[in-house]
Amino acid sequence: MSSSPSVKALAFDVFGTVVDWRGSIARDIEAFAQARGVALDGAAFADAWRAGYQPAMQRVRSGDLPWMKIDALHRLILDGLVDRFGLRSLDEADLDHVNRVWHRLDPWADSVEGLSMLKRRFVVTPLSNGNFSLLIAMAKRAGLPWDCIVSAELFRHYKPDRETYLGTADLLGIAPDELMLVAAHPDDLRAARSCGLATGYVVRPLEFGPGRPPYAVTDGEFDVVATDFVDLATRLAPDR
Amino acid sequence: MSSSPSVKALAFDVFGTVVDWRGSIARDIEAFAQARGVALDGAAFADAWRAGYQPAMQRVRSGDLPWMKIDALHRLILDGLVDRFGLRSLDEADLDHVNRVWHRLDPWADSVEGLSMLKRRFVVTPLSNGNFSLLIAMAKRAGLPWDCIVSAELFRHYKPDRETYLGTADLLGIAPDELMLVAAHPDDLRAARSCGLATGYVVRPLEFGPGRPPYAVTDGEFDVVATDFVDLATRLAPDR
Repeated sequence: MSSSPSVKALAFDVFGTVVDWRGSIARDIEAFAQARGVALDGAAFADAWRAGYQPAMQRVRSGDLPWMKIDALHRLILDGLVDRFGLRSLDEADLDHVNRVWHRLDPWADSVEGLSMLKRRFVVTPLSNGNFSLLIAMAKRAGLPWDCIVSAELFRHYKPDRETYLGTADLLGIAPDELMLVAAHPDDLRAARSCGLATGYVVRPLEFGPGRPPYAVTDGEFDVVATDFVDLATRLAPDR
Repeated sequence: MSSSPSVKALAFDVFGTVVDWRGSIARDIEAFAQARGVALDGAAFADAWRAGYQPAMQRVRSGDLPWMKIDALHRLILDGLVDRFGLRSLDEADLDHVNRVWHRLDPWADSVEGLSMLKRRFVVTPLSNGNFSLLIAMAKRAGLPWDCIVSAELFRHYKPDRETYLGTADLLGIAPDELMLVAAHPDDLRAARSCGLATGYVVRPLEFGPGRPPYAVTDGEFDVVATDFVDLATRLAPDR
């Protein structure tokens, strides 16, 4: 496995690749609900919330909904889960706090160390469907050492729309093949590759909880495959 | 002097406010020209280059030129200075290197320390007419600890167009009066204030070289006036 020596910047998918959305939401909301006297299965709640994510973005893509930030889409989905998870007693301030749990996601154990190593050699940026302010709040809380913030919000297109990958390269002032998308999701990587980006696949077997089968990928399909961000740094910048 | 307790983020003008463009360009280009056998007055060269800046942006604003990144505008101006400053012997690679001196500007002595202090309490971002990749390269080289990068490029409008100030607040997910523009230039601050932003005036008496008269400002015109970024941090976040 090798990558083009011309790669100058790495753009990271965030939800699942940099941060553990499922575990973070389960812990945070289970504790919050308990403090409000509600018994809630945090993991089931996280899964139900995330299940609404792709369909909600598709409604924007199709024109059924206007462009909106992920904060607003998350809230739309959350409002549909309130009854099912027994959260009717929560007031508006509570629901806003719950909705912003996506700003409070914890990184995987290797994320900060790996990003810090990679930052010495590359420009490191998120490329996430999460909105700009969400990504800033997350980075400040978790200590993610980004060089900048790139969100789908800047292009008013969600991944995997081409505008996001090509728009990131343009903002960074580099050619598409000088930009590597790093993601735990083969579909994201394949869309980036079709735009001419380099690809780095980082396996996150626990994203959806334990015991899930790995994604089917073809040998050599991606430029680099790594077990975590420190491994990725060792492969891309072995001299650092 | 006091500021609204509701300010959550600080957006900084960059050229002249965070970095010493004149001194940096003079040093860098004078040395580079000398290595190419050209004797050049670095300060005069910096002043001539900067003098083309506002007129060039105005050509874009008026539609005489299409939207372009500042890198491209800087190059346009530079090409007009080549004969005057005896730089005809420079080849394309040399001219590109000279043009990117704007990526290599040195911060004022207090900039990194002050930003680091302010970052503990506020979101800190540039809001510059410099393009996105220029601001990243500058930050990596100078160690500017931004939480994100905001460039006029994101809005396809240069300051002082309203889209830049209001667009920054929108990206940060805050109201205009929760955002403070920090700048060494009263015109920039006045435009921000007219959009409802808070304003922080930092005096940079050496921006255009020694012996220049200070800007005329009215007492109380801006929410905060500071002598440098450490002073600004002390005024805005005295408990840190």
